[in-house]
Amino acid sequence: MKTPSTLEQLIQALRVLPGVGPKSAQRMAYHLLQHEQAGAARLARALADALQKLHHCARCNTFTEQEVCELCNDPYRDDSQLCVVEMPADLLRMEQTLVFKGRYFVLMGRLSPLDGIGPRDIHFDRLLARASDGKVREVILSTNFTVEGEATAHYLAESLRARGLQVSRIARGLPVGGELEHIDSGTLAQALIERRAL
Amino acid sequence: MKTPSTLEQLIQALRVLPGVGPKSAQRMAYHLLQHEQAGAARLARALADALQKLHHCARCNTFTEQEVCELCNDPYRDDSQLCVVEMPADLLRMEQTLVFKGRYFVLMGRLSPLDGIGPRDIHFDRLLARASDGKVREVILSTNFTVEGEATAHYLAESLRARGLQVSRIARGLPVGGELEHIDSGTLAQALIERRAL
Ligand SMILES: [Zn+2]
Ligand SMILES: [Zn+2]
Repeated sequence: MKTPSTLEQLIQALRVLPGVGPKSAQRMAYHLLQHEQAGAARLARALADALQKLHHCARCNTFTEQEVCELCNDPYRDDSQLCVVEMPADLLRMEQTLVFKGRYFVLMGRLSPLDGIGPRDIHFDRLLARASDGKVREVILSTNFTVEGEATAHYLAESLRARGLQVSRIARGLPVGGELEHIDSGTLAQALIERRAL
Repeated sequence: MKTPSTLEQLIQALRVLPGVGPKSAQRMAYHLLQHEQAGAARLARALADALQKLHHCARCNTFTEQEVCELCNDPYRDDSQLCVVEMPADLLRMEQTLVFKGRYFVLMGRLSPLDGIGPRDIHFDRLLARASDGKVREVILSTNFTVEGEATAHYLAESLRARGLQVSRIARGLPVGGELEHIDSGTLAQALIERRAL
């Protein structure tokens, strides 16, 4: 008595998903076959579609169905500012603020030497070429304030400055509506250190 | 600036997986497109294959690629014993013991009134018909010793006994190699209550 091979293959295939081990892959396979046949069919099609149609924007590196994405093609954006983010989701969050009118570059990751993720994996050469187009005046590093995001910003700042580019980093501090009493002391300390003259 | 629709569709489609919310679906989609294109293609095929080829065994209800599964077709199994388990994985665990030589019925779930999972969802009518084939002498309830598994066993025992069938329940007690000092007291209490005469 063995698991039917198509079921075994599905369980194995599900393990490609991040954070999905053997137990959880089995549970997912049973769930899909038992309760979500239509959803599973949709997922199969969505995967095939995405693989076929999506690729990286030739300018900003985000996912797009075109050669160059909508935003990079928008003639009304400011070519002199280039905002560097880790992931496409960060680009969307930034856009939601309605404050930034420049262009973007999406690293599609962050430096993480312990995981073997180096400059090549965050497309450093492409960022360099993009930032050196003669129009970009300022590169705004908007990676996360995690250990890895900070290390990435540090590395990029050094390398970009060495090439004569002006580099800035988004600010750290209390959130809007934040109360000193409820903020972690690391953030509060940084908010103090990075205080602005009024 | 919107998420490309094929990407949005993939993120939505991934949410069919149990325990996968919007954040986690987004992370999975990026991971697949960025680092696991071959794996994602394999997953799409495995899903389509499984949906097309797998269905429930007409006799025991487990997943199979045939009309009746290997085990139900095996002429050397004992028709007088029917072991009832919750899931196909439980059937496999049971087979690994090499102790049981009878037949199986897989509920594909367990009763859970709070989640709206009733007798119909665990294929009670089919179990009843299967157990009433004139050959089955004993139904061995091997659902889990969880609250839901116990409630399921209780319900099945009542209903099957009412139809004149002999019903048993797998034993509860210390695991092989288990030490009193390290066993939870609930299990120890049950091991005492369910002690066997020697
Ligand atoms: Zn672009
Ligand atoms: Zn069967």
